[in-house]
This record gives sequence, C-alpha cells and structure tokens, in this order.
Amino acid sequence: MTRVTADVGISLDGYASGPNQSFEKPFGDGGLLDHLRKWMFDEDEAPKHAAERAKITSATAYVMGRNMFSPGRGEWDLEWKGWWGDDPPYHGPVFVLTNHAREPLTMEGGTTFHFVTDGPESALAQAKAAAGDGHVSIAGGATTLRQYLKAGAVDELRLHVVPFVLGQGENIFTGLGGAEFEAVEVSGTSVVTHVTYRRSSHLTLT
Amino acid sequence: MTRVTADVGISLDGYASGPNQSFEKPFGDGGLLDHLRKWMFDEDEAPKHAAERAKITSATAYVMGRNMFSPGRGEWDLEWKGWWGDDPPYHGPVFVLTNHAREPLTMEGGTTFHFVTDGPESALAQAKAAAGDGHVSIAGGATTLRQYLKAGAVDELRLHVVPFVLGQGENIFTGLGGAEFEAVEVSGTSVVTHVTYRRSSHLTLT
Repeated sequence: MTRVTADVGISLDGYASGPNQSFEKPFGDGGLLDHLRKWMFDEDEAPKHAAERAKITSATAYVMGRNMFSPGRGEWDLEWKGWWGDDPPYHGPVFVLTNHAREPLTMEGGTTFHFVTDGPESALAQAKAAAGDGHVSIAGGATTLRQYLKAGAVDELRLHVVPFVLGQGENIFTGLGGAEFEAVEVSGTSVVTHVTYRRSSHLTLT
Repeated sequence: MTRVTADVGISLDGYASGPNQSFEKPFGDGGLLDHLRKWMFDEDEAPKHAAERAKITSATAYVMGRNMFSPGRGEWDLEWKGWWGDDPPYHGPVFVLTNHAREPLTMEGGTTFHFVTDGPESALAQAKAAAGDGHVSIAGGATTLRQYLKAGAVDELRLHVVPFVLGQGENIFTGLGGAEFEAVEVSGTSVVTHVTYRRSSHLTLT
C-alpha cells in the first residue's frame, strides 16, 4: 500500500490561511505568513528545521487543489505555470484537481503537472500509481487536505503549529469532528511545534 | 511579580469541552473526556505524564470560574462543596469567581475556597497576594481562562492536546485572534502532546 502523507502549517487555533486570500496574499490576512516564515526562512531558525522542511517535498508523487497551483478560477490561463518558477520543488508528478482540462505541463527538475478532471479519488489513485516505491503527499490547500482527511485517505498528518492565534480563515479541522489520530513524533523550537499524527480510525467519505 | 500559569486539556481543534455540559457530563458530549482520561488515568500512560500532572496542582493559589466549582447557577446550594471530595487537590487558597456571595469554605488538606464577587481582576489580585513565594494557576473553565488570556494575564499556558477532533463546544481560542506566544517546552506520547507556551505580546482587556 502506498503511504499518503500531508504537511500543513497552521496557527494555534487550526487555521491554514487567513481570510481574503488573493494572488498577492496566498495566506490571506492576519499575519499567518509572517509566523510561517519564521521557521521556514529565518536565518537562525531555518537550519533547525531542515529535516522537517525536507520531508515536505520527500514524496515521489503529489496531489494538490487547483488553488494551490493557481490563483485563477474558470478556464486556464496557459501562461500560468504555478507559483514556483521553472524548477518547482516537487521533482516528480503532481496531480492537480480541476474542473478544466489541460495538457500536462512539464517543468525543469522532473516536475510534471497533470490536470485531473475526474475527482479526488481518481487523482489519488493516479498519484499512487505514479509513486513507485515512494509515497504520495497531499500538497494542499486546506480544502483539498480536509477532503482527503475526511475520506480517511491520509496515513500521516504532519502539523507545523505556529504559536499564534489567527482567529479566522480556513480551518484545517472543519467538518472532521470525530477523527482520531495518534501522535508519533513531536519536536520544535520557540517558533513552531512539529507533531506527526497517524490515523487511528477510518472515516468514511460522506 | 507573581507568575500566573494555566493548564488546559484540549482537542486537536482547541476545544476544552464539548456541547451540553451538565453535572453528569462535565466535559459535555463528543468523547473528549475519554481522550483526556487516557493520559491522566490509563495505567500504562499515566506514569509517563506524572511530571505534567503534578504541575497542574503545583501553584500556591488558584483562580477558577464558578462552573469549575459547581454545576449550579444562581444562589448557592451550601451543601455543595466542589467536585473533589473532602480533600481537594489544590492544598491552598482557591478564589472562585461568582455573582453570589458566600462565606469561605475550608476543606481538608489546606484547600480553602474563597468566593469573589467583585470580578476577575480582584480575584487574580487576591490570589497573587495569597500565593507567597509560589505562583498562581488559573484552574478553569474555558470561559474563565479565555478572559485571563485576553487580558494578557497568563504568563505560561500549558496545553495538553489530545489527538482527536471534537468539532464543537467551548473553544479555548475563541476571541483571542492576534495573541502571540512562544513555545518553550514540548513533549508527549501517542495519546497527548504537552506544549508550554509563554506569552510574547500583551493583549489589552477590551
């Protein structure tokens, strides 16, 4: 069985993004991005979290929601090739959930974006088939991750909790009442707590 | 300055109790109590968390909300002497926030409940004055703790996060948007993650 993981940075109160997300503000209002930057990019902090950061792109295939790939809605702007420049950090196949068909997009460094129009189960099945001996990561955003969590499809959920109350936005736990996990690893510094959870009960997609 | 701490057990999504709290179900519906029991009372787990459990009652004075002391509302039933039997675990003065005056209640083992009718600032000031060389703990419930968090009065917040999504009830973070902390200690096992936070910015009571 191909393992499925997911990494998500959240506020203390479970938000993966603030309100009013836009092209200029992919994490919305409220300051979450500043807190995520501390452990990801601060020159003193970032080296302490190198192993955790590396895990985020350690899968051999990925699934992401359309809004994780593009700020647009509706028909594709074919000039848009993702947020990550010519060499995205995935270095493997990335299955993008969308209602709008598009030819696969091959980037430098081994990343190919495949656009999947027949739903999340199909996207995950394709990612698993493409993962080889590796694993699949659900690369976000919050809505896509919640969908797979609700289906009981995520074996390992890695939360990166920043010590800050955001108060509003997209909450990673909305609609997941009753989901049970077990904590398998915990670490961190003053600016982030990393907790790895394994699924301990199956939820049925409803 | 007398240090103020607070311990609270919460679900992954920040709830300190479920809906429909009652005398029979002090943690409400939804199964939170079962998850809290695992680390507090399970015979294999409890010994691993002895140090964390001991901290919960390590203060020399306490503040608690009326509903933490009593399931009742309105005038006192003077027969009610708290949930804890003749020898409560506090072993010191406990200042209970209430709108209804009552004579102090002295229990075995050094615990005395004082009933404070002139508000949370007064209760905290009285607890600090009574704490001597020790510290004050905000003993709950969620509403009382949120009030003191919002006032920036809690120096050290110890979360005991059980790996379970409750989905509804009393959320410890409601109304605290913008509150910033730093994580100073993290530990745990499969059934609970303990994270100690220090306040890193003052919030003004509004």
